[in-house]
Amino acid sequence: MNPVFQDDIRFAQALDNKDVLRTFRSEFYFGDEDTIYLDGNSLGRLPLKTIELLSTVTKNQWGDKLIESWNKHWYHKSEELGNKIAGIIGATEGEVIVSDSTSVNLYKLAYAALKLQEGRKTMISDIFNFPTDLYILQGLMREFGDDYNLQLASSGDNITIDVKDLRNKITKDTALVVLSMVAFKSSYFYDAREITEHAHKNGALVLWDLSHAAGAVPVELNKTNADLAIGCTYKYLNGGPGSPAFLYARKDLQKKLFSPVQGWFGDHNPFAFDLNYTPAKGIRKFLTGTPSVLNQLAIEPGIDILLDAGMENIRNKSMLLSEFFIFLTNKLLINHGFSVGSPIDAEYRGSHVSLRHAEAYRICQALIHPQNNTLKIIPDFREPDNIRFGFTPLYTTFTEVWQTSQRLEEIIKNREFEAYSGERKKVT
Amino acid sequence: MNPVFQDDIRFAQALDNKDVLRTFRSEFYFGDEDTIYLDGNSLGRLPLKTIELLSTVTKNQWGDKLIESWNKHWYHKSEELGNKIAGIIGATEGEVIVSDSTSVNLYKLAYAALKLQEGRKTMISDIFNFPTDLYILQGLMREFGDDYNLQLASSGDNITIDVKDLRNKITKDTALVVLSMVAFKSSYFYDAREITEHAHKNGALVLWDLSHAAGAVPVELNKTNADLAIGCTYKYLNGGPGSPAFLYARKDLQKKLFSPVQGWFGDHNPFAFDLNYTPAKGIRKFLTGTPSVLNQLAIEPGIDILLDAGMENIRNKSMLLSEFFIFLTNKLLINHGFSVGSPIDAEYRGSHVSLRHAEAYRICQALIHPQNNTLKIIPDFREPDNIRFGFTPLYTTFTEVWQTSQRLEEIIKNREFEAYSGERKKVT
Repeated sequence: MNPVFQDDIRFAQALDNKDVLRTFRSEFYFGDEDTIYLDGNSLGRLPLKTIELLSTVTKNQWGDKLIESWNKHWYHKSEELGNKIAGIIGATEGEVIVSDSTSVNLYKLAYAALKLQEGRKTMISDIFNFPTDLYILQGLMREFGDDYNLQLASSGDNITIDVKDLRNKITKDTALVVLSMVAFKSSYFYDAREITEHAHKNGALVLWDLSHAAGAVPVELNKTNADLAIGCTYKYLNGGPGSPAFLYARKDLQKKLFSPVQGWFGDHNPFAFDLNYTPAKGIRKFLTGTPSVLNQLAIEPGIDILLDAGMENIRNKSMLLSEFFIFLTNKLLINHGFSVGSPIDAEYRGSHVSLRHAEAYRICQALIHPQNNTLKIIPDFREPDNIRFGFTPLYTTFTEVWQTSQRLEEIIKNREFEAYSGERKKVT
Repeated sequence: MNPVFQDDIRFAQALDNKDVLRTFRSEFYFGDEDTIYLDGNSLGRLPLKTIELLSTVTKNQWGDKLIESWNKHWYHKSEELGNKIAGIIGATEGEVIVSDSTSVNLYKLAYAALKLQEGRKTMISDIFNFPTDLYILQGLMREFGDDYNLQLASSGDNITIDVKDLRNKITKDTALVVLSMVAFKSSYFYDAREITEHAHKNGALVLWDLSHAAGAVPVELNKTNADLAIGCTYKYLNGGPGSPAFLYARKDLQKKLFSPVQGWFGDHNPFAFDLNYTPAKGIRKFLTGTPSVLNQLAIEPGIDILLDAGMENIRNKSMLLSEFFIFLTNKLLINHGFSVGSPIDAEYRGSHVSLRHAEAYRICQALIHPQNNTLKIIPDFREPDNIRFGFTPLYTTFTEVWQTSQRLEEIIKNREFEAYSGERKKVT
């Protein structure tokens, strides 16, 4: 399927010229022409339309219209945006809503699932899951009691999950399986259908964290009979820093699940100010308090761009970008101590590729803060030895992929990384 | 203490000329010169500096600097803003943090308090509390079990709480007392010291919802030995629609309380991505997921203005505004079926005044959508018969208060309200 790749800028340029998504790059703000940004899997770029939208929301909606904007512009956004996101993740209208953060959404849905599955006392996840997801589950275990336990499926190679181990862990005692559909470090991409079928056979529910999957890979929630899902909007959805997350609950499950955090936005008629809570019908019952309007509205342009581009085109380009990168890695970098830290089979890989190297941290520093080069490249580092290269089909070019490989080879050949400290910068 | 009030625009103008806070109005955006906005207790006005700040955050921080802005600009904002808010509500550095919505913060703190108070199975609130606070507590009761119960203190007159009833309800079985320090409908302002002392004698903890109090009235959390508090930032703090909320936990209590929603931002070292959660030291442990950066950063200018104005000046002007309004109500409106739905004693009143009238809904419509008048006045309506007039000392003038009273008299005298439907517009 792939073309015969060549290590040649003209070859990369030719791929760009043939790219059906090439015009989408111009829908994003580029204030940094000398930068190759390969961290859209951490924080997506700013859509140009979002600049204008935020200005309108601030001055015209908040500034001019004040409280009247609630009815006119803001109140229904959680559902409207949820329905648009449904189109990206293979769900149906009324199954997705935008609310809170991913962690808070996980808390609400996992709590509700544990209650529904009363009598089953095991939760299953894997060592590839986001730590914040594991932290939320650990908190739930403490609150639900000593007889509850969380088991993590393991990995032999730190790249793919040991699916046999995972399958064996799912038993008749399993209440809920919580997995990142695409692993944030290795980019391992689960076969959702296989896991869901196996879990359902055992009476377990499955909750997918789609943070690294939504807008990056085909997520067919309905087709795979998915139960529950959560995900953030600031990565491949380009929704902006800390933009609110989404949650999905399959239609037939919604009636059976109850949010532990039942704030007024999840009430059936919040502005009646009734003293007793009655859950809203459908997915709205998972809303909590007043949503963060500025961040929430800001996510719409990014979603519209994705819907316009089409997930099939996104996936095709994503695979081609990462296959090209792996080809270049094998040609230029393997002999310099690099190894590919992501699945080689594109079917099991998300839209980023991790490279591993004993000097990964310092190499990453050299990419981001070049001393003798005007080209700045921004991937990110994940302990202990991973550099993640995130390819966002909407704005990453094949030329950028080629340039990145050349630069990596250059850093190693000139031993540029030795000029940097290996000491980790702590954020806290 | 009050001057001898006069029903005269020149008198109102003279009060404006003497107002030590008069220059602060110019720090806010006014796109609507023909509007008198008296709903700052629902959504505060837009500070001019916020327009510029949001543009900078969007284009320069998100657009240009992308992921690098996390370390440089965003990561510590939850604490920094919390410490600034501490200066408005009488708390100490390290006791306040910005996070999530008010409802989610109530859930976290009330849950933690119930766990700490194990064995005590009663929660106390009152019928004046925000419905969303009651909904959250009702959800907690369901989750904690049938032996838990929530009791609400009553009111004889729908204006002041029956404090005797409240005191009697607080017993040795009381785990937690949750009250709005200023009631959202009647504006009743609790004597926090009295309630806290009584609760502590019974071994109960008190959690204050400061949403209608912060930035409006003197809140002396430390001086009154307050245990816990929450509050929103979009009312008197002018933080913007759905801006994130804050929470307070007294220093010595922080070690004993554990958030049920333990996301990565509450971990001691989130970017180490350790698979096991270790709570951060201090107030940070109450953070959950990634905060909504745009909304969060937008709250700073409003807080800075309040700190600059000083809470004593705010309170003095607030009382004078509402006393003037009540004087005018008594003179012009009482004979037209209006009654004051807020405490007459200014010491027990927040910064809004509710007027009650059998035709309150239609009168409110006439104020907001005038047909034969260019002056638009925006208060808000609360069932069944309250019109709330919110006075924000930073930008409400005495002239506006005078104009509002004249307009109310005119609406009644001309029976203007009869042109409007009494049917409630439902948002849902």
